[in-house]
Amino acid sequence: MPIQIRKLDSSQDGFQQSLDTLLAFEAGTDAAIEASVANILADVKTRGDAAVLEYTNRFDRIPHGGAAEMAAFDISQAELQAALNGLPSAQREALQIAAQRIRAFHERQREELRGFTYTEPDGTVLGQKITPLDRVGIYVPGGKAAYPSSVLMNAIPAHVAGVAEIIMVVPTPDGVKNQMVLAAAAIAGVTRVITIGGAQAVGALAYGTQTIAAVDKIVGPGNAYVAAAKRRVFGIVGIDMIAGPSEILVLCDGTTDPDWVAMDLFSQAEHDELAQAILLCPDADYIAQVEESIAKLLPTMPRQATISTSLQDRGALIKVRSMEEACEIANAIAAEHLEISADNPQQWAERIRHAGAMFLGRFSSESLGDYCCGPNHVLPTSRTARFSSPLGVYDFQKRSSIIHVSEAGAQTLGRVAATLAYGEGLQAHARSAELRLKPQP
Amino acid sequence: MPIQIRKLDSSQDGFQQSLDTLLAFEAGTDAAIEASVANILADVKTRGDAAVLEYTNRFDRIPHGGAAEMAAFDISQAELQAALNGLPSAQREALQIAAQRIRAFHERQREELRGFTYTEPDGTVLGQKITPLDRVGIYVPGGKAAYPSSVLMNAIPAHVAGVAEIIMVVPTPDGVKNQMVLAAAAIAGVTRVITIGGAQAVGALAYGTQTIAAVDKIVGPGNAYVAAAKRRVFGIVGIDMIAGPSEILVLCDGTTDPDWVAMDLFSQAEHDELAQAILLCPDADYIAQVEESIAKLLPTMPRQATISTSLQDRGALIKVRSMEEACEIANAIAAEHLEISADNPQQWAERIRHAGAMFLGRFSSESLGDYCCGPNHVLPTSRTARFSSPLGVYDFQKRSSIIHVSEAGAQTLGRVAATLAYGEGLQAHARSAELRLKPQP
Repeated sequence: MPIQIRKLDSSQDGFQQSLDTLLAFEAGTDAAIEASVANILADVKTRGDAAVLEYTNRFDRIPHGGAAEMAAFDISQAELQAALNGLPSAQREALQIAAQRIRAFHERQREELRGFTYTEPDGTVLGQKITPLDRVGIYVPGGKAAYPSSVLMNAIPAHVAGVAEIIMVVPTPDGVKNQMVLAAAAIAGVTRVITIGGAQAVGALAYGTQTIAAVDKIVGPGNAYVAAAKRRVFGIVGIDMIAGPSEILVLCDGTTDPDWVAMDLFSQAEHDELAQAILLCPDADYIAQVEESIAKLLPTMPRQATISTSLQDRGALIKVRSMEEACEIANAIAAEHLEISADNPQQWAERIRHAGAMFLGRFSSESLGDYCCGPNHVLPTSRTARFSSPLGVYDFQKRSSIIHVSEAGAQTLGRVAATLAYGEGLQAHARSAELRLKPQP
Repeated sequence: MPIQIRKLDSSQDGFQQSLDTLLAFEAGTDAAIEASVANILADVKTRGDAAVLEYTNRFDRIPHGGAAEMAAFDISQAELQAALNGLPSAQREALQIAAQRIRAFHERQREELRGFTYTEPDGTVLGQKITPLDRVGIYVPGGKAAYPSSVLMNAIPAHVAGVAEIIMVVPTPDGVKNQMVLAAAAIAGVTRVITIGGAQAVGALAYGTQTIAAVDKIVGPGNAYVAAAKRRVFGIVGIDMIAGPSEILVLCDGTTDPDWVAMDLFSQAEHDELAQAILLCPDADYIAQVEESIAKLLPTMPRQATISTSLQDRGALIKVRSMEEACEIANAIAAEHLEISADNPQQWAERIRHAGAMFLGRFSSESLGDYCCGPNHVLPTSRTARFSSPLGVYDFQKRSSIIHVSEAGAQTLGRVAATLAYGEGLQAHARSAELRLKPQP
């Protein structure tokens, strides 16, 4: 049966409502998962290593009756290096090139944010100091969703920021280790790799145990248990965004090979049945050509079942009035990945206010950015690009304000502060400022 | 009965445990509040204005039988301006000076973050674009905790960031408006003021109603209902940190007038019985002098009941071995406000990695920073300065990655991406990169 993708037209009645329905996605919360995660976290907080050991042996089906002590879950730097050396040379070189490019881009981010101080005429100094976090945890999923590219994208920004300790956790169900993931850890600047996962790993990182030091922030994707655990420990440690399904929005002026656009839509749809791939184009004939390309190419894809479900359930081919209108709709969608596959793409990019990452021109396929262009592939999903940013070096840094008031400054500022403090009924605030005033002559 | 403040000594056994106990604070969650907030949010999401109107009339005891329509809750720009004009001139000028200084500091933040692009030798362009949020909501508490300084500190960074619409909500229990709060809104760049509050206001801002456009982020302090509502809508909109009790940590080398230090501790303790004020000093005699100052000055304070409870329950005077050790302990505490009241404070500031704001030198009382130095007074509490920052312009901006791969770039990057994509089992990603490769000659 041929694939049926939703087709919309922005000039038709009810378009806005159809678009809203298409975009609507709310991550459900599962009470059973929540309860289970709450128990595991409380147990890890109380019993530490003993709890982590038990849960890991059980949930990850560690062979030979399970590990007897936590040390069994540590992977040495030598083993990481051996994993890198053992890869086929094409894979090893690809990982190294990707890591080098990701590092180069993120070093630009670090250079941008240097802090500042300035001195006022009365000698008062004000400023902002930038410091890295001391210690962070990187969660890396195990099993079939183990992605070495995620290791690079999460660990390298922390390393570039100057984080002294980067602790990576990665579960190894049935004791099976992914060599590419270990190799990625070897080149990303990871300090320590521990083969634990799930809510127990999140708890260990957040609270610390006898053998694992508590971290300041936990980043990285995970399943529903990991996401629920991260939400619960937020505040005790920092966390990154809880990612929703991945999305691509392609704006095309009808001048790109339709096979390319079809494959770009597939590249998002193959991630997940809930992934969302949408095309906006002012040219109805071109949309028909993309449809033909989809029908032609889909049978050649190993993950065609996932792609079909994703495209049929959540995809859309949308005819718009103009590229200008496409840009407006793109701002409302605020997509994670936005491809502007068009001649002179810069003219349209200037109109875009909200997107996680913009891929300009027909050679900038999203997949290049996923692996090796340099910018991060951890991006805001589910319209959160309206208010949040790609993962970056700045996520592993924080600012402290610097206030050094001179004696002269305290005279003028003290009167202002005291007036406002009395106005708010905070007399100790006012007195604290007034004590610094010199007696009037 | 004289006040009893906990005294600790870092050289004594069990000090670390005593310190951990002192710092331990976990915000409780109240099931009744959670349930009530969930209902209110669901109702506002479904019924919009009608629900907001009902809750506001009821919870805020709006006089004369309540308002008949939402428009009654809007405050015009003319009324805001009239509030400013009606203030005593000292208050008006103090607000204006504070606003001007806060604006000047935050403009430095905006200048620091300008985005970047760079072009690689093969013509590939990479970069990072900075854009403001479109629309934000500022929550301002009503009643006795209505602080005009909070209006300035929350709204000005958004305005400096270039946010087009800044919607402030402030409940007016019993219909009573705080003129200083309205005056602050007049000079902070607020677009619209609506006299609603509680979970219903958070819901209106997050989901939008017939008369209130949905915002992209909600910032500002509030009671337990407001905090619970913000947590629940997080993800649909951005939120700032949920603040814990306020804290001050004073590092003193024993050279500051002890009355000044005592009053600085009071200025934090007067906020709240849960507020925390701690002194670290290597000089036992000086600590005794501060204790005497506390005993002498406390009876003069209008808020002495709150100050006493706070100091007795959560305060401490800690004798340390040296200023060097004081800095180490300060890094472990990661205080919201850190005063370094010492000669040559810069030498100690260089050792500090974690603090919301640092106040250097004996003239830099925290109260000056609370009102008018320029840096923000919304700061990370409860040790979250380990991983988070003061509220700033950057909280109202976000980044989008820019990736413009040249045809030549696609040839080299495509091979790297395809190798990694095949390694991860994502064939559509690989094919999407390969389609951009030119046929080999």
